[in-house]
Amino acid sequence: MPVDFHLSPKEAGVRDAAVSFAHNVLKPMRAEYISLQSPQEQFQVTRKAYAAASAGGMIKGQIPPALGGTGGSLIETAILVEEFYSVEPAASLTIFGTALGLMPLNLTQKPEHREFLAPFLSSEGTPLASLVFSEPGGVANYLEKGAPGLNTTARREGDEWVINGEKKWATNSVGWDNRGADLACVVCRDVTEPAENPDADPKDRIMLIIVTRADLERNGDESFQVVREVTLLGHTASGPGHHIKYTNVRVPAKNMLCPPGEAAAVVSGAFDLTAVLVGAMSVGIMRAAFDAALAFAKGDDRRGKVPLLERQAVADLLSSIKMQTEACRALTWKAAHAMENGPGDYDARRELALAAKVYCSDAAVKVVTEAINAVGVTAYDVEQPFAELLKNAIGLPIFDGGNVGIRRRHMQELMLSPNYDPWAATYGPSGAMK
Amino acid sequence: MPVDFHLSPKEAGVRDAAVSFAHNVLKPMRAEYISLQSPQEQFQVTRKAYAAASAGGMIKGQIPPALGGTGGSLIETAILVEEFYSVEPAASLTIFGTALGLMPLNLTQKPEHREFLAPFLSSEGTPLASLVFSEPGGVANYLEKGAPGLNTTARREGDEWVINGEKKWATNSVGWDNRGADLACVVCRDVTEPAENPDADPKDRIMLIIVTRADLERNGDESFQVVREVTLLGHTASGPGHHIKYTNVRVPAKNMLCPPGEAAAVVSGAFDLTAVLVGAMSVGIMRAAFDAALAFAKGDDRRGKVPLLERQAVADLLSSIKMQTEACRALTWKAAHAMENGPGDYDARRELALAAKVYCSDAAVKVVTEAINAVGVTAYDVEQPFAELLKNAIGLPIFDGGNVGIRRRHMQELMLSPNYDPWAATYGPSGAMK
Amino acid sequence: MPVDFHLSPKEAGVRDAAVSFAHNVLKPMRAEYISLQSPQEQFQVTRKAYAAASAGGMIKGQIPPALGGTGGSLIETAILVEEFYSVEPAASLTIFGTALGLMPLNLTQKPEHREFLAPFLSSEGTPLASLVFSEPGGVANYLEKGAPGLNTTARREGDEWVINGEKKWATNSVGWDNRGADLACVVCRDVTEPAENPDADPKDRIMLIIVTRADLERNGDESFQVVREVTLLGHTASGPGHHIKYTNVRVPAKNMLCPPGEAAAVVSGAFDLTAVLVGAMSVGIMRAAFDAALAFAKGDDRRGKVPLLERQAVADLLSSIKMQTEACRALTWKAAHAMENGPGDYDARRELALAAKVYCSDAAVKVVTEAINAVGVTAYDVEQPFAELLKNAIGLPIFDGGNVGIRRRHMQELMLSPNYDPWAATYGPSGAMK
Amino acid sequence: MPVDFHLSPKEAGVRDAAVSFAHNVLKPMRAEYISLQSPQEQFQVTRKAYAAASAGGMIKGQIPPALGGTGGSLIETAILVEEFYSVEPAASLTIFGTALGLMPLNLTQKPEHREFLAPFLSSEGTPLASLVFSEPGGVANYLEKGAPGLNTTARREGDEWVINGEKKWATNSVGWDNRGADLACVVCRDVTEPAENPDADPKDRIMLIIVTRADLERNGDESFQVVREVTLLGHTASGPGHHIKYTNVRVPAKNMLCPPGEAAAVVSGAFDLTAVLVGAMSVGIMRAAFDAALAFAKGDDRRGKVPLLERQAVADLLSSIKMQTEACRALTWKAAHAMENGPGDYDARRELALAAKVYCSDAAVKVVTEAINAVGVTAYDVEQPFAELLKNAIGLPIFDGGNVGIRRRHMQELMLSPNYDPWAATYGPSGAMK
Repeated sequence: MPVDFHLSPKEAGVRDAAVSFAHNVLKPMRAEYISLQSPQEQFQVTRKAYAAASAGGMIKGQIPPALGGTGGSLIETAILVEEFYSVEPAASLTIFGTALGLMPLNLTQKPEHREFLAPFLSSEGTPLASLVFSEPGGVANYLEKGAPGLNTTARREGDEWVINGEKKWATNSVGWDNRGADLACVVCRDVTEPAENPDADPKDRIMLIIVTRADLERNGDESFQVVREVTLLGHTASGPGHHIKYTNVRVPAKNMLCPPGEAAAVVSGAFDLTAVLVGAMSVGIMRAAFDAALAFAKGDDRRGKVPLLERQAVADLLSSIKMQTEACRALTWKAAHAMENGPGDYDARRELALAAKVYCSDAAVKVVTEAINAVGVTAYDVEQPFAELLKNAIGLPIFDGGNVGIRRRHMQELMLSPNYDPWAATYGPSGAMK
Repeated sequence: MPVDFHLSPKEAGVRDAAVSFAHNVLKPMRAEYISLQSPQEQFQVTRKAYAAASAGGMIKGQIPPALGGTGGSLIETAILVEEFYSVEPAASLTIFGTALGLMPLNLTQKPEHREFLAPFLSSEGTPLASLVFSEPGGVANYLEKGAPGLNTTARREGDEWVINGEKKWATNSVGWDNRGADLACVVCRDVTEPAENPDADPKDRIMLIIVTRADLERNGDESFQVVREVTLLGHTASGPGHHIKYTNVRVPAKNMLCPPGEAAAVVSGAFDLTAVLVGAMSVGIMRAAFDAALAFAKGDDRRGKVPLLERQAVADLLSSIKMQTEACRALTWKAAHAMENGPGDYDARRELALAAKVYCSDAAVKVVTEAINAVGVTAYDVEQPFAELLKNAIGLPIFDGGNVGIRRRHMQELMLSPNYDPWAATYGPSGAMK
Repeated sequence: MPVDFHLSPKEAGVRDAAVSFAHNVLKPMRAEYISLQSPQEQFQVTRKAYAAASAGGMIKGQIPPALGGTGGSLIETAILVEEFYSVEPAASLTIFGTALGLMPLNLTQKPEHREFLAPFLSSEGTPLASLVFSEPGGVANYLEKGAPGLNTTARREGDEWVINGEKKWATNSVGWDNRGADLACVVCRDVTEPAENPDADPKDRIMLIIVTRADLERNGDESFQVVREVTLLGHTASGPGHHIKYTNVRVPAKNMLCPPGEAAAVVSGAFDLTAVLVGAMSVGIMRAAFDAALAFAKGDDRRGKVPLLERQAVADLLSSIKMQTEACRALTWKAAHAMENGPGDYDARRELALAAKVYCSDAAVKVVTEAINAVGVTAYDVEQPFAELLKNAIGLPIFDGGNVGIRRRHMQELMLSPNYDPWAATYGPSGAMK
Repeated sequence: MPVDFHLSPKEAGVRDAAVSFAHNVLKPMRAEYISLQSPQEQFQVTRKAYAAASAGGMIKGQIPPALGGTGGSLIETAILVEEFYSVEPAASLTIFGTALGLMPLNLTQKPEHREFLAPFLSSEGTPLASLVFSEPGGVANYLEKGAPGLNTTARREGDEWVINGEKKWATNSVGWDNRGADLACVVCRDVTEPAENPDADPKDRIMLIIVTRADLERNGDESFQVVREVTLLGHTASGPGHHIKYTNVRVPAKNMLCPPGEAAAVVSGAFDLTAVLVGAMSVGIMRAAFDAALAFAKGDDRRGKVPLLERQAVADLLSSIKMQTEACRALTWKAAHAMENGPGDYDARRELALAAKVYCSDAAVKVVTEAINAVGVTAYDVEQPFAELLKNAIGLPIFDGGNVGIRRRHMQELMLSPNYDPWAATYGPSGAMK
């Protein structure tokens, strides 16, 4: 079949459902929480929407069929994410935070861990999952040789792992009540054996351990503490990623999702997938900015004879926004398709996912800035949508792996590989050509 | 004397005083209001700082010696504005809002209006002035022929002018208590005579009328109403520019600051001066962004072996910020100097003022975005300064005459003039050269 | 079928053939002409390549099957254009110039004009076609009411049209020998009747007339003159678009391809198609810039310990280039697909074609500039590929309808339409949604 | 004295003389060489202008009064450079190449080297000086520990130094006849003693040796060879910086301008000064681009009813160019003033010089690109000035120390210093403040 941009009936169905959910659930929910001042109260308001998403199969939809879920293609997910983000990013992030939290299980697919998925397959309640990775001191260089590495540690004691350390920024990590997510995949450093070899690769110590709500409750209140509630500039109603602290959290050995040496790749793989979704989030925000600025430019004349859109300076900002949005959506779809279907090896595909994250998130900030300039001072009024768009957009380049410190560094590593084959994810390996 | 960038003792003195005021008055005040949720409460907290500014001669300092004040050069004011804005923009804007409110009086300097300046020359209390120009429907095209023009009108009835209409965005326009500024210079359209000639120049009807607090009180509560309290994305503690409405406000004929036909140029001239100051505000914000990002890049390693600043990607963002800040300060000073000293005619000088507004405010948004990207997700935490810097910076290109709709349009008009002489404000008129 | 980026066997075949032609024909030809100083001599060298293209079916391939040709999809053409441009833009433009020259015939498809296509269907010789539209004074505003309009005119006299006027910039318009293209579609203004109504729409006078080489020969040497040979900064070996002059060129009535009133839309439609192809040209140039800069960054260390690519500043420029190239290719393919397959009405599709032209051509200039900065002063040596890439890239935003004066204006017109439906070319008409 | 942007009579006099020279000498010279194809022939044409510059005192003017010259302030030089570059960059570079070649002597000011300055103080003939630093493999990392370092070496043998190695890019290095400059300051690595300590600082081996034309002649033809004539994309008529090779060039010990360990700082200091001048070159090119685009926009209507400048899209490009030019000039002057007058220590001043180089040269490329887009396809015609402006502008960020590999690295080093005091070059050391 030739290259094809038409949505299949299934893809169109995903979109229709997403549009409907966004307008019937997310939008009214937003109207409800927007007047509240406290992020924690706002977050609580979103629980109803999360429950509706769960009941509607959206949580189950983040688990692949092979594990009993109803997950679709990455392009379908991108389409859904764009629709949600164009209407209400903050609460959407909670849902996608659970998706990220489940990804390590989706990627490893080991039979012994299937039980952990049960609450998320039930389409009942409001279970939150979280990939607990980032730390107060950052993780951009956590695999650098000779550097201190992750501060969160795990020590094997008998049949248990004992976890200690501080984390921050992980969406959903504190659950609905600041007492922990239903399921946390905690990235930590194995310190069972003392570090002796200064040339050792830090990666060989990195592991992933599952910590459930039940584990925390069994360990007692002091095992899990919120050190500080973090208020974000944007996405304020989303599942909080407060500064937290694990103290002697003991979990059974079976909770070891990835043994030392295997976890870094799984964490990386999970973020490769969210990279594509941040591309889609960016498109959603850009689209909303365009729609809002267009409506203003068509309906307002700033006391002149013609609508603003007849002024070239305004029109050029709008067409600039439109073009960036179109380019970013096309790039995001390309990356989503390549990640699952190729061509090219994993590294070639991964580069496109990183590109979708970096390129589209940077564009989203630029686009919202342009929209604000097109509208003028009216955009400074918080009753307009632009303030919220800016506060959300500015998070995209820096969360989910900062573009400067993490995502672009991965792009650099890929390019440095002797096997780097720049156009393989579009045209297949170049070896045989010419 | 050759071109010289050294601060004179007087200029250095202005800076020292500004640094001192910023750190001893503005900074503690900010710490006090930042925890408050309501913009109105925040604004009230700043009143003490405004009182200190007044007592310290800063309000009197916005009136030229010829009118009994102690105003200094525009470069001195730019130096002061940079210092204030690098520490605390919101409350600073209230002070500069009064400066703008007094500018029409400073520019016209008619003896019959000197009485209105008395409260501002006293160095007592907290008198607020406001240039009440912008309207809910905007003013970008208020002088366009054939367009509806200003909605705020004045009608001569006997010895009085009767003012009606709605305004919005004018800093300080509602005073400390939502019942009006101590002194408002209201831009309005004379409708005493019916409009008959469709080819008439709308400029010929534009006038400036002074409305004092006493005028409003005499006219009764219904004469001045706050239609809607406007909450801004940034500058939230500054003198509000709510949506207001004048209803049959009668003022004596002597309140006519500029008769029809003379006001548009005075309004324009006032905004030419603030254009330079927005350049300085932008520099202040850029400088604060640089200082904060530099401290982070020197003190944080994101769990790597070296401080972030040793990473080229971070360093290049910081040097980009530094260069833009230096270029913008140099441009702002050049504009400030040229406005008062030439060379070149008024239009040539004015182009530089517009350039300082547009170029520096656009740069400020870019710079803060770059700082946020250099810092990464930590910048999304509202306890860091970056959220506030972004919310303030994004206002600069759109307030005080939006760059796209107003300021660049004026640059276009200047370039279109047959007498346009692009380098005259640096090298003098080109006529005799070559 | 779901959204799919895999090349079909036919699309892959087009690419293989294009790669082969580029490397076996275009590349050696370039090596031959590059040492020549005169553009005219360079152009002559490319004739062999054009002959090979013709013999290989590439000229016939620009005519749709319905007219006897072997033309494929627009995505196939985009794939081919990218391959050609990544190796050798100048001579490629001659081939695509013929494509543009034939487009009016492809779009109108009237039986009475099929005879004109015969030379191009034969796969023999080196026939050149040209769409002769632009003029020395430009055409950005040729349809503006009250403006002078096109300077090239046609007057009906009996069974003939008599053409007069000057043209410039039209690729291939002078043919191989400065005596005219084999087939020229000349855009002109009907002046048979005197203009009387000042409110008339200039569009109603615009027509398209075919002028063949035989027509010119019949009219004599003075009927077609090269007023000045134009040397371009880039694309120097491509089919020249010199400043030419038609003087009393008489052609039979059957040469009227589009009567007055119908031509403007056909011209516009032809340039909508080339808009997509300029997107592909841009991608080809960006790709070449990336490949060259990557090779340098991997192979050179500027006397340091590591290859340049290990320096973040260099890597970030390269990843920036890579991302822009990927985004532009995805956008170009999306536009190519939408133009032929929808969804959305013609205006919705067309907006994407314009976006591909504007966005990708602007990106190409930026990308080449970034590549030059990554490489450093070595790139200033004309033996490196970067000088040529820059000279070619800078043409893309300004030829084929300048982005600022023409292409963005069309985007503005589309947005101003009351029926504008921004996302229809991706998701279908929005009417029924929600 | 307060900050002052007025030109003093002396500064105005420098400008008047520069304007006169540019128009009376450089412009006609350019008209003469532009039709020639070979860079070498073009360069020869400029010799007359160089002779006129010499006779007019401009070569002597590059030597400070303390050494017998008539050199003025750095701002005066910046003013002169802007004027030259706005009219004719290529030949101007030859003159400034001599300035750079003399800078090591100006900076060291040792009595024993004054004899070398004699030809340049005479105001006779066309003596060329050159700072011969860059090499075919680059010098961006020539001081990196553990890296190969400079390939050009010097070995002490008795009373002589013996120089071997290859150089490239050094303006004027081959003289008028490819047989060497009249005076070359050659940067080389002392290899008299074998390198034994792998931790040694490469800087301790770097030295500067003077090689005069007489030295080369004494050593015989084979001692100095042009390996390859390098043709540049722009600046084609300027003093060539071909790929050259020194083979056993013996010079007397007195030619040692800087002993090992002292040269790197002198080389760096010389390039700090040229950094400011590249800022001025950039301003000259931006100004020329503005003037040319303005003339087009005022005089052309592209067949519309109004001049192009009435179109907002065109006007906004022009005002963007204007603002960048003004900002860059102000920054360049600030840097020039600070370098000579402070405040702040040398590192603080130097940062401004680097900023002028990087910021203004990057801006020049952007500005010329914008001018080309404002003009449209007409700019692609080499008879317009834009092609030449682009070819010259693109050299500015990459020559004289590439922005990415060298200049920004120096900015990074400055910021990394524990003593870094970001605003000291404007406001003085910050220590005592607050």
